Amino acid sequence: MSEGFTLWFTGLSGAGKSTLAAMAAAELRRLGYRVEVLDGDEVRTNLSKGLGFSKEDRDTNIRRIGYVCRLLARNGVVAIAAAISPYRAIRDEVRQQHARFFEVHVDCPLETLIRRDIKGLYKKALAGELSGFTGVSDPYEAPLTPELVISTDRETPEKSLARLFAGLEAHGFISRNGAGQ
Amino acid sequence: MSEGFTLWFTGLSGAGKSTLAAMAAAELRRLGYRVEVLDGDEVRTNLSKGLGFSKEDRDTNIRRIGYVCRLLARNGVVAIAAAISPYRAIRDEVRQQHARFFEVHVDCPLETLIRRDIKGLYKKALAGELSGFTGVSDPYEAPLTPELVISTDRETPEKSLARLFAGLEAHGFISRNGAGQ
Repeated sequence: MSEGFTLWFTGLSGAGKSTLAAMAAAELRRLGYRVEVLDGDEVRTNLSKGLGFSKEDRDTNIRRIGYVCRLLARNGVVAIAAAISPYRAIRDEVRQQHARFFEVHVDCPLETLIRRDIKGLYKKALAGELSGFTGVSDPYEAPLTPELVISTDRETPEKSLARLFAGLEAHGFISRNGAGQ
Repeated sequence: MSEGFTLWFTGLSGAGKSTLAAMAAAELRRLGYRVEVLDGDEVRTNLSKGLGFSKEDRDTNIRRIGYVCRLLARNGVVAIAAAISPYRAIRDEVRQQHARFFEVHVDCPLETLIRRDIKGLYKKALAGELSGFTGVSDPYEAPLTPELVISTDRETPEKSLARLFAGLEAHGFISRNGAGQ
């Protein structure tokens, strides 16, 4: 059967991580891969209830997601993480624990996110009602050498997805002929 | 590929859960199955750091193990949990989330465990140095209808393993012909 890997989406809130993760999952399943999506919100319910948004709690949350991704990936699953994961050191720690890891920086300028503000979170953060909000009152450390950067303000999700799959194929992580299971 | 399932060992500290889990894992791998063992101690490091041994924290810990087992099992892996998991309601909650769940009560009389006391924990618990110790100062609710009861004071690990595999086969969870992957 096919080897698994972890596809890790990192980026600011509202940048498009969950959307891209869902689209990638659907396409990978279509190609015959086993896929699990570990989305930030779902994970906070199932793995990290009680954790807050301090650096320490964020790190713990990301380590847990990384641990579960690793268990899945080494058993042939494509584990997709969609979490802000703002700290570079922890993302790199998770990468080190993987045989195959593909990091995607889902990038979008802060001013665009503030203008869109689909969930109304940036408004609250800028008004000081949300403390420790990544990009506003908490740091975001962009990856230095991610496998892919997707600028969601400059291309359509369909175009991004096509570039993602070209990247996965170029790295030998997938074959367009299917999972070969 | 083969379907996964969760093999859940519950029982008092020192009853033999980890030993049986390791033996079962080795034999399942030999038969061609993908296997992950979620052992209580390892899980407390990777998923549940910071949790204690109150009922609430124990329940959270077991729910997390159950969540990870479910993700693995539905992707074709045999997920083996070895955790005291003292509360029936939470074990049953985890079972409900699974398509295929095999619960093994690893049973051993308390007096035998106290006499063996390999880790010296029962001595400490009886001396009042460990609070909330299952079987001594904290409850253990044995399963009412587990798929299998293994009495580790009455049979060898090899005999237990043979009965376990007969049970897994009888329930249609494995085939002695191998994983068929």
